[in-house]
Amino acid sequence: MKLMKTIAPVAALMALPSLGLAQDSVPGTDASTDSIFIFNTLLFLIGGFLVMWMAAGFAMLEAGLVRSKNVTMQLTKNIALFAIAGVMYYLIGYNVMYPLGNWSIGSDETGGYLGAFGVAVLEAVGVTREAADDYGYASTGSDFYFQLMFCATTASIVSGTLAERIKLWPFLVFTVVLTGLIYPIQASWKWGGGFLDSQLGFLDFAGSTVVHSVGGWAALAGALILGPRLGKYKDGMVHPILGSNLPLATLGTFILWMGWFGFNGASQLAMGTVGDAADVSRIFANTNTAAAGGAIAALILTQLLYKKVDLTMVLNGALAGLVSITAEPLTPSLGAATLIGAVGGVLVVFAVPFLDKLKIDDVVGAIPVHLFAGIWGTLAVVLTNSDATFSGQLYSILIVGVFVFVVSGLVWLILKAVMGIRVSEEEEVNGLDKAELGMEAYPEFAKG
Amino acid sequence: MKLMKTIAPVAALMALPSLGLAQDSVPGTDASTDSIFIFNTLLFLIGGFLVMWMAAGFAMLEAGLVRSKNVTMQLTKNIALFAIAGVMYYLIGYNVMYPLGNWSIGSDETGGYLGAFGVAVLEAVGVTREAADDYGYASTGSDFYFQLMFCATTASIVSGTLAERIKLWPFLVFTVVLTGLIYPIQASWKWGGGFLDSQLGFLDFAGSTVVHSVGGWAALAGALILGPRLGKYKDGMVHPILGSNLPLATLGTFILWMGWFGFNGASQLAMGTVGDAADVSRIFANTNTAAAGGAIAALILTQLLYKKVDLTMVLNGALAGLVSITAEPLTPSLGAATLIGAVGGVLVVFAVPFLDKLKIDDVVGAIPVHLFAGIWGTLAVVLTNSDATFSGQLYSILIVGVFVFVVSGLVWLILKAVMGIRVSEEEEVNGLDKAELGMEAYPEFAKG
Amino acid sequence: MKLMKTIAPVAALMALPSLGLAQDSVPGTDASTDSIFIFNTLLFLIGGFLVMWMAAGFAMLEAGLVRSKNVTMQLTKNIALFAIAGVMYYLIGYNVMYPLGNWSIGSDETGGYLGAFGVAVLEAVGVTREAADDYGYASTGSDFYFQLMFCATTASIVSGTLAERIKLWPFLVFTVVLTGLIYPIQASWKWGGGFLDSQLGFLDFAGSTVVHSVGGWAALAGALILGPRLGKYKDGMVHPILGSNLPLATLGTFILWMGWFGFNGASQLAMGTVGDAADVSRIFANTNTAAAGGAIAALILTQLLYKKVDLTMVLNGALAGLVSITAEPLTPSLGAATLIGAVGGVLVVFAVPFLDKLKIDDVVGAIPVHLFAGIWGTLAVVLTNSDATFSGQLYSILIVGVFVFVVSGLVWLILKAVMGIRVSEEEEVNGLDKAELGMEAYPEFAKG
Repeated sequence: MKLMKTIAPVAALMALPSLGLAQDSVPGTDASTDSIFIFNTLLFLIGGFLVMWMAAGFAMLEAGLVRSKNVTMQLTKNIALFAIAGVMYYLIGYNVMYPLGNWSIGSDETGGYLGAFGVAVLEAVGVTREAADDYGYASTGSDFYFQLMFCATTASIVSGTLAERIKLWPFLVFTVVLTGLIYPIQASWKWGGGFLDSQLGFLDFAGSTVVHSVGGWAALAGALILGPRLGKYKDGMVHPILGSNLPLATLGTFILWMGWFGFNGASQLAMGTVGDAADVSRIFANTNTAAAGGAIAALILTQLLYKKVDLTMVLNGALAGLVSITAEPLTPSLGAATLIGAVGGVLVVFAVPFLDKLKIDDVVGAIPVHLFAGIWGTLAVVLTNSDATFSGQLYSILIVGVFVFVVSGLVWLILKAVMGIRVSEEEEVNGLDKAELGMEAYPEFAKG
Repeated sequence: MKLMKTIAPVAALMALPSLGLAQDSVPGTDASTDSIFIFNTLLFLIGGFLVMWMAAGFAMLEAGLVRSKNVTMQLTKNIALFAIAGVMYYLIGYNVMYPLGNWSIGSDETGGYLGAFGVAVLEAVGVTREAADDYGYASTGSDFYFQLMFCATTASIVSGTLAERIKLWPFLVFTVVLTGLIYPIQASWKWGGGFLDSQLGFLDFAGSTVVHSVGGWAALAGALILGPRLGKYKDGMVHPILGSNLPLATLGTFILWMGWFGFNGASQLAMGTVGDAADVSRIFANTNTAAAGGAIAALILTQLLYKKVDLTMVLNGALAGLVSITAEPLTPSLGAATLIGAVGGVLVVFAVPFLDKLKIDDVVGAIPVHLFAGIWGTLAVVLTNSDATFSGQLYSILIVGVFVFVVSGLVWLILKAVMGIRVSEEEEVNGLDKAELGMEAYPEFAKG
Repeated sequence: MKLMKTIAPVAALMALPSLGLAQDSVPGTDASTDSIFIFNTLLFLIGGFLVMWMAAGFAMLEAGLVRSKNVTMQLTKNIALFAIAGVMYYLIGYNVMYPLGNWSIGSDETGGYLGAFGVAVLEAVGVTREAADDYGYASTGSDFYFQLMFCATTASIVSGTLAERIKLWPFLVFTVVLTGLIYPIQASWKWGGGFLDSQLGFLDFAGSTVVHSVGGWAALAGALILGPRLGKYKDGMVHPILGSNLPLATLGTFILWMGWFGFNGASQLAMGTVGDAADVSRIFANTNTAAAGGAIAALILTQLLYKKVDLTMVLNGALAGLVSITAEPLTPSLGAATLIGAVGGVLVVFAVPFLDKLKIDDVVGAIPVHLFAGIWGTLAVVLTNSDATFSGQLYSILIVGVFVFVVSGLVWLILKAVMGIRVSEEEEVNGLDKAELGMEAYPEFAKG
């Protein structure tokens, strides 16, 4: 994931033509330097549509893991949050996240804390190499497009945890705040060159913390304030509530697995040189094997613990493997990546019943997958990347965690006070689809 | 979307080697010019597989929005039409659409009206740069592949509107005519350099008119001749008929949203220069935000109008946003693109009940989405692209509309007379899957 | 599909800098040669994620074609086999398949029979062009990633045939052997430069034999040893068992169709020159039209034979068209490719009842699609590629077939003896989901 865009070289390049050199003979600005710009841009576009696809993955995963009476609601939230993220990141998020030195609070030197405000502006149509915002990097449009998808992913993570009892509109208002402010502010601390990056040396390649744990913390705050679903914890027992459509959940997992190649791979932010192309390749291979490690760990562990393989654990194991490798998908060997992912898978198998013991009702397991494995993955960076320090990783995890958990909690509490965030008991029993939307997902099939 | 391929430069290039220059020193034909050819080709291949994927999106959208008793039929039509489009575009469509000056009726100078006939022929295996059909552009194979997917998209649009009462084979015969003749003929008028392009200055970047409204007109003609489904309009009331599987419909929408990046982005037809790469990026970003605008507009509007968000309207709102931006995804700012998409979303919310008032039964809302938003998007080009004239856009919309509506209507009427296009009442009540195919989509679940 | 990586040129290049030339002036190692490496790497990454996506396609296809009581099992097997393939190919498969001359049995000269053992190792982070494993080819990471997906595809093919009666763990153990040894060993014979390649002149571009028939032979051996499902062949009759979810099966087919562009297209193994880019384009176009030919052939043939179109045959017809073109997707014209695919579609329509006559119970039709069409496609290479000989193709098919069938059969027999491979009759009647996993796929919908 990129730091600040380096503006200086571009300015230097732009001055050169005035020296009277023909365009093609400007050193470093000929057709082969163009190709670096084009390869990087292409990487962002391919990575971007793969990460966009993850929005569909979350939608299917969640639609498959809720009961049929709440499926339309889950679908509505997922498509709506993706649309909202698109507009909020344009209106506010992009410049808050990438202030390019224009911090509203702080500075590159003293540490950036709050980025710039203003809508995102793309480069002009048919921009020349001299007029490109950052000729040594990639087109602004591709950068905006790619980064937007990360913001949307964060929002997708929240919707699963809070399923089956939250009202539609408070969730969407929360999404507005999350995608317009909470995500971009904390993301600027690392990827915008803010204080976590400049002062703590925090390393988070593609966002185990910046994306996944943020979604997890926001979900956790919501789950605590919202409370568990009716009947989930009754008479001191945990009553499992079954997902209504496991093919959808599996499809969603495969979609996420696929999209993750873009998520991690394009976070190399460059593929115009031999080294960058080889690095993107390493990342693809490591990302795959970490997911495999997570899935296999959950497969074996559920067999050992419960004498039966648990498909939903295997799916979440794969996802946890993916989250685990996201903070550092480049430096591990294939073997290390497999093990890092496998630990993520093990975490999930133990964390799901652990949350139930705490009576924290996480419908799809997003907190184990995105928060717990995200923390693990962020700490695991120190195992394979000597530039990372344990303290820098830990403090950054804590700072981001406290910020997101507290601010999210406040937003949820305000929403609870102002408009209410939970449906009535009767509505919950009847299902949100009837109560909130008046439209069933499977009108011809479902029991109730 | 391309005009005619420029043949002249290629011819010029092919003459150069005879001057005795070593291949690598031919000006403009060295490795870095090769990379323009390769980048453009790659853009078409990536764009092409994304647009191909839209065929799956239509299949899922439609399978989700019909009743379970007609799902197998809808799936069969969608996979069959995609296969038929592939063969017809090869046999006839490609050269009709891109006559390269060899018009059967008309000429580049006086206006082209009917293209060339003959099967598509790809470049030889391992073609050299000198022997490439259009070295300054891209490989013929990638161009054929990409353009074919647009032809198939047009056919996909039709199948949704006519669902739940049309017979299989007449629909497939119509698809043969649509993909072999109707689509390519009118597409040649603009993208083949025909009279709409050369004489009216018509602008339609990726096909709000050339693809989407064409599908919409063909569907409208079919819907009028076929009549509404039994029970849809009875006793002066509109009886809503619910889709059987909203996760599938949502999945289909996400697939279409994803595929649209290829649809619009690769219609830049080039990404081998800084300017083209930045333009493709602008298009990706604008395409996404237009979809977001359409979805949010429908979200808010259905809440205001009906006090409940309507998921199917949100899905169609996103799609209408996509159709709206398709005629000009490059020149708008992000803000303008969002608003252009939002207007598309608003259109859909009002157009669906409007069609019902006219007793035009459009099962999936394809006419509002593809025809109405297509017209809006084509007119909206004048808002951000000063090369477009309102009259040039309007006349082109009308000319294409009259041609497609009249010819499609004739084909439907002939099919009605010759083989009948509608199943019997009894078959319609029992469902097309039993009557026409003898195979249920969900034999273990469905009610009937 | 590649032969051995050519190491020699790289060594030569690596020696050059010692001549004191500045890096940029080393002939053939400047920025534009870099772009060949990058384009090839990118091709593998794009091709790889498309082939990875085929794993989801198989999962959906199979989940749609089994009864609802066995769906969770089918999903579990598909995600688990993909994870297992990822790890086994890393641990053993990659170097067995590509020994780079270090054969454990045989040699490049006398014929390679068994490759090298050792885990896969990627290039270092940020590798330089001089240190790249194969600068004239592509990054090792992208090559590993791409080739791994082919190995996983082979395993996916097996799971469909054996559905609805096989136990989970024996299947997974078989997958370990298949992806770690059986697939890589026979793949080395052709793609690793082994004896089929060097001595028989065997041609198999993307794996009609090396991938698809191998999956088919392994499935056939399993099906014979496992026996048919209860009730499939009773009282001398064939009792069709209906798939529970045809939209999933159709989605799976579209996914496979899409993924196949990567499967065949990236098997060109290069797109850094005009000729290679044009060839990849030819392959995309031919792959699509072969699928179309297969689908249309099955569409028409089932109408003629049974008076009703059979959707599952159309789906399998498209897949058979894809398998048929896989051995040679480059040299055919579009017309020839359509016909080659169409013959595949015809084969499927006749092969499905033929297998039933032999009481070989192939739940999803994988043997007709992958084995029969794979053999046809491999033989059909001689029709359009004069480098292929009928005898070289036939002997290679037989050698691969005998090897895979015998070894797979032995493994299945050992598994049967050691742990049992089939569930009890009662478990089969109740469904594997309850018996083996304790988790239903559709707990709210299914009959029970």
